[in-house]
Amino acid sequence: MLAVVFDSELQVRIDYPEPRPSRSDALVAVRVAGVCSTDLEVMKGYMGFTGVMGHEFVGRVVSGPEKWRDQRVVGEINCVCGRCDMCTGGLANHCRDRTVLGIDGHDGVFAEYVALPVRNLHAVPDTVGDEQAVLVEPLAAAFQIVRQLDFSRSDSVVVLGDGRLGQLVARVLKTVVRRPVLVGRHEDKLEAAEKAGIQTVAEGEFSPRADADVVVDATGSAEGLETAMRAVRPRGVIVLKSTVAAGKELNLAPLVINEVTVVGSRCGPFPDAIQALADGIVDVSALVTGRFPLRDAPEALAAAARPEHIKVLIDVA
Amino acid sequence: MLAVVFDSELQVRIDYPEPRPSRSDALVAVRVAGVCSTDLEVMKGYMGFTGVMGHEFVGRVVSGPEKWRDQRVVGEINCVCGRCDMCTGGLANHCRDRTVLGIDGHDGVFAEYVALPVRNLHAVPDTVGDEQAVLVEPLAAAFQIVRQLDFSRSDSVVVLGDGRLGQLVARVLKTVVRRPVLVGRHEDKLEAAEKAGIQTVAEGEFSPRADADVVVDATGSAEGLETAMRAVRPRGVIVLKSTVAAGKELNLAPLVINEVTVVGSRCGPFPDAIQALADGIVDVSALVTGRFPLRDAPEALAAAARPEHIKVLIDVA
Repeated sequence: MLAVVFDSELQVRIDYPEPRPSRSDALVAVRVAGVCSTDLEVMKGYMGFTGVMGHEFVGRVVSGPEKWRDQRVVGEINCVCGRCDMCTGGLANHCRDRTVLGIDGHDGVFAEYVALPVRNLHAVPDTVGDEQAVLVEPLAAAFQIVRQLDFSRSDSVVVLGDGRLGQLVARVLKTVVRRPVLVGRHEDKLEAAEKAGIQTVAEGEFSPRADADVVVDATGSAEGLETAMRAVRPRGVIVLKSTVAAGKELNLAPLVINEVTVVGSRCGPFPDAIQALADGIVDVSALVTGRFPLRDAPEALAAAARPEHIKVLIDVA
Repeated sequence: MLAVVFDSELQVRIDYPEPRPSRSDALVAVRVAGVCSTDLEVMKGYMGFTGVMGHEFVGRVVSGPEKWRDQRVVGEINCVCGRCDMCTGGLANHCRDRTVLGIDGHDGVFAEYVALPVRNLHAVPDTVGDEQAVLVEPLAAAFQIVRQLDFSRSDSVVVLGDGRLGQLVARVLKTVVRRPVLVGRHEDKLEAAEKAGIQTVAEGEFSPRADADVVVDATGSAEGLETAMRAVRPRGVIVLKSTVAAGKELNLAPLVINEVTVVGSRCGPFPDAIQALADGIVDVSALVTGRFPLRDAPEALAAAARPEHIKVLIDVA
């Protein structure tokens, strides 16, 4: 089958073996896939991954249990053991033995087919188009913040970073607080957020005043946390939403002095994201800035790395 | 009066002017003071402080409101405005305009007298001796953790660092969880903890296994946080208890991947600490390893910087 593989280098292969689903798997024909910053990290060596790239997708089940056959689905990315202390303790996303779709030990979705445990599947309602459904995974990651923190409508909330994730986070937070503010450095991206009713501030005009109840760092840079520490109020909360590799000396004393809480946040609840799209309470219409066929995936990845793009999609079928 | 002053260098002065208490202040004759790691940081330039050093003390009120006169007291270190958003919002310790005893804009307690707002005072019961009372401030800081987090008796809790603060934190946590473990690198300090019924592990024999519910970093080093990130379980909590200056590149990705919560923790509730000492539920007997008269405060500070010491006291009166 046609597949985009990372193995020290990016390869577009037409002879990649089709996945062989186990008894608990479904085989899914991928329709559309999304490019995430983690994919770009994978190409830099993140998790030492080799195999088919990609983890955001919508597809159609072609084989598996009767009730799933021919269903249009999205899928959770953590493939878990079901037996370790995390799985039995209700924290399956943190399974000690997990593999992660296109990120760690499990072939991903930049391919014609992917095999995935049936328990990972979520059906997509007909009212949610492929261009929306493909955003369910990152949208769920944004909803994770709402699961982890209690918000009041009047909370002062700042989202740092106008990229893919920051855009979704701001939209989700707008469902729970009156006026989240998105801080970013790209005029066109801030405009996209404004169109969805988000208040925005250009990075150069943002003065951190230690008065925000919650600051979400979705910058993907070490500087983001420093800005967050200046923007959050004493006893406030910083949500770390992107995995930032090292590369900067950090002085974390402000966290202690101001008794700030930092909450790491990763994957989130698919049902919340699907429901929000079905109900139209999160407007993702302006986010897709590029689409490429699967065989041009290298160009899709290169585009996703350029600042003018927000979300880049890969059309598989 | 006799006072130990920091002004680019350490000075022992016999001619330092006695403090002039305002109408809302009491004048306190210091009896015993304690040396804290923050004092050592002050001598390296922390907060750009100049003035009388020291913030941990027990003393006797010599002038002030009738009801306080002649009382034996300890005192909170944050002198607050009472008017800013933090003060009126119930977070006075985070007052925007605060001064801090011996740390920031307010003369401290390595002196014969100190002037302190009456609202900062707490009476010490007769059953609590000076050697215990002088530990109320750091003990309160340890109790702050219990105020910030909900513990279950069965929680697996690790305290990193066998110094002054780690010792107190382990003792306080022993009041709420069955078996806190103190990890340190000094045989004699671990022995002092064992005497108080704390389970200990030598640093060289500690293998972080990502299974602790809560890890308290009281190492005062950047490496402490890295060890904490390896020791804490997914969705667990790291408490940052010491202000670590920069000096190390930190990779915080594990916080995101494992959805760890980091809680900064500073000053704490004096009443909890006084009550614990009065009730004898926290055993601080083996902690004091050195005592020096006020005029030898430079030696006291030098001793406190050496690894063989836990708590060093300064006898003023």
